[in-house]
Amino acid sequence: MPQLLKRLAFQVGSVPNERTTTFTSISNDGHHISLRPLVNLNSTSEEEFPFEWVFAGLNTGVRVVPISEGVVEQDFNFWLDTNCYLNLPNTHRGEVKTIWTQWDSGSVAENGEVFPNGPDNPGVPFFELWHPLDPNRVEQVLLNDPLTTAEATKARSIVFKVREGQGYDGLVIVTGRWAQGFLSKQGDATVDGLNFLRTIELEDGSREALVLYGSDAEKFPQEYLGYESGAHVEVHGLKWDVIESN
Amino acid sequence: MPQLLKRLAFQVGSVPNERTTTFTSISNDGHHISLRPLVNLNSTSEEEFPFEWVFAGLNTGVRVVPISEGVVEQDFNFWLDTNCYLNLPNTHRGEVKTIWTQWDSGSVAENGEVFPNGPDNPGVPFFELWHPLDPNRVEQVLLNDPLTTAEATKARSIVFKVREGQGYDGLVIVTGRWAQGFLSKQGDATVDGLNFLRTIELEDGSREALVLYGSDAEKFPQEYLGYESGAHVEVHGLKWDVIESN
Repeated sequence: MPQLLKRLAFQVGSVPNERTTTFTSISNDGHHISLRPLVNLNSTSEEEFPFEWVFAGLNTGVRVVPISEGVVEQDFNFWLDTNCYLNLPNTHRGEVKTIWTQWDSGSVAENGEVFPNGPDNPGVPFFELWHPLDPNRVEQVLLNDPLTTAEATKARSIVFKVREGQGYDGLVIVTGRWAQGFLSKQGDATVDGLNFLRTIELEDGSREALVLYGSDAEKFPQEYLGYESGAHVEVHGLKWDVIESN
Repeated sequence: MPQLLKRLAFQVGSVPNERTTTFTSISNDGHHISLRPLVNLNSTSEEEFPFEWVFAGLNTGVRVVPISEGVVEQDFNFWLDTNCYLNLPNTHRGEVKTIWTQWDSGSVAENGEVFPNGPDNPGVPFFELWHPLDPNRVEQVLLNDPLTTAEATKARSIVFKVREGQGYDGLVIVTGRWAQGFLSKQGDATVDGLNFLRTIELEDGSREALVLYGSDAEKFPQEYLGYESGAHVEVHGLKWDVIESN
């Protein structure tokens, strides 16, 4: 089923916090985008790039290994990653191993370790707490009763991917009313080449942009009705293929 | 404003978890009830008493001290407390000092220390993470945008207290659509003397009981329309005074 996970807490070191409005969209087929905009900007670098991190991955980049009841290992090789794109020093490269533990409350705890100083140096453990939201709702409705869960399993799941050979990489994932997108210009390696999208379909069918970032953001598909898998659409000169649609 | 706080995480020791569906109701005037039912029962003692803890307090039992921007100290002396009522060994007695820190995400982190082995022995630090819900909604809607917050400030806030001299102690707090109650029989000191209530007013105006626990639970007021402060109601022989109504 498509999922819209909201991050409740993030911890590196001894003190948890949550400075972002982070949502991870996961499509039916397991493609994913995690968009992590900061709520308040406390430094010049945060004003220049108001995101903690953004990444996107295809289902071919995730390996899921059941560990025990309610516990799975998920190993990620991201496709698009702002840390890599911007060549940020002291940030992790390559596969990230994570353990996901289901709590009775319906939240899911993620524990992992990153190696910002390379695989030969000590790693840094991190903890993230997530809770599924009902992707069919405009508000942030926590998903943990059978009624809303049943409705949520039938949510729309559509994935657009930029067609190769145009000088861009990009992915848009639509889960229910929520859409998130990552679009980067190849070879730029600065914040000027990055574009992000978060929209929500309101009750009247119109779309509100919660995040519309970057000079190429107009190239994101923002209408999602009637697309079958295998279809394509051109938006302001950029061709996108529909690689999944339920 | 009346508040309905949902606990997202609880931590004693190195690993956080959340095994309950905990809501804390806080009335306009600062009376409060925290009802912490376990989701899954893993032991005989949990089956005998399926709550992590329940407590209730009057506003006279809370001292709030501003510390810095977004940080307040709150020192609690609970009025009703299942640990005290049941004379549970190795549980805290007396004032609990806590520090509440507002996060950018809208969640609130509570840090405190309890002294289960008495004030002369080392304390045990704890951490709880809370998020305000919209008390006017049937679902668990996270409250962190201006629109829902404005609506929530106008939520109903009504408090019932058992009149003295009847052999019971009890409090019911209504915040928006949600009501929580604590009722204990004086001098019993076993689980047989404890009663708890959590109800929600559905869209059609009817009330669904999410928690209705104890042999005296029928004595809880369960209709909340038209009560002014100073009014009273008798429910199955038990008199309740309305000590607050907005």
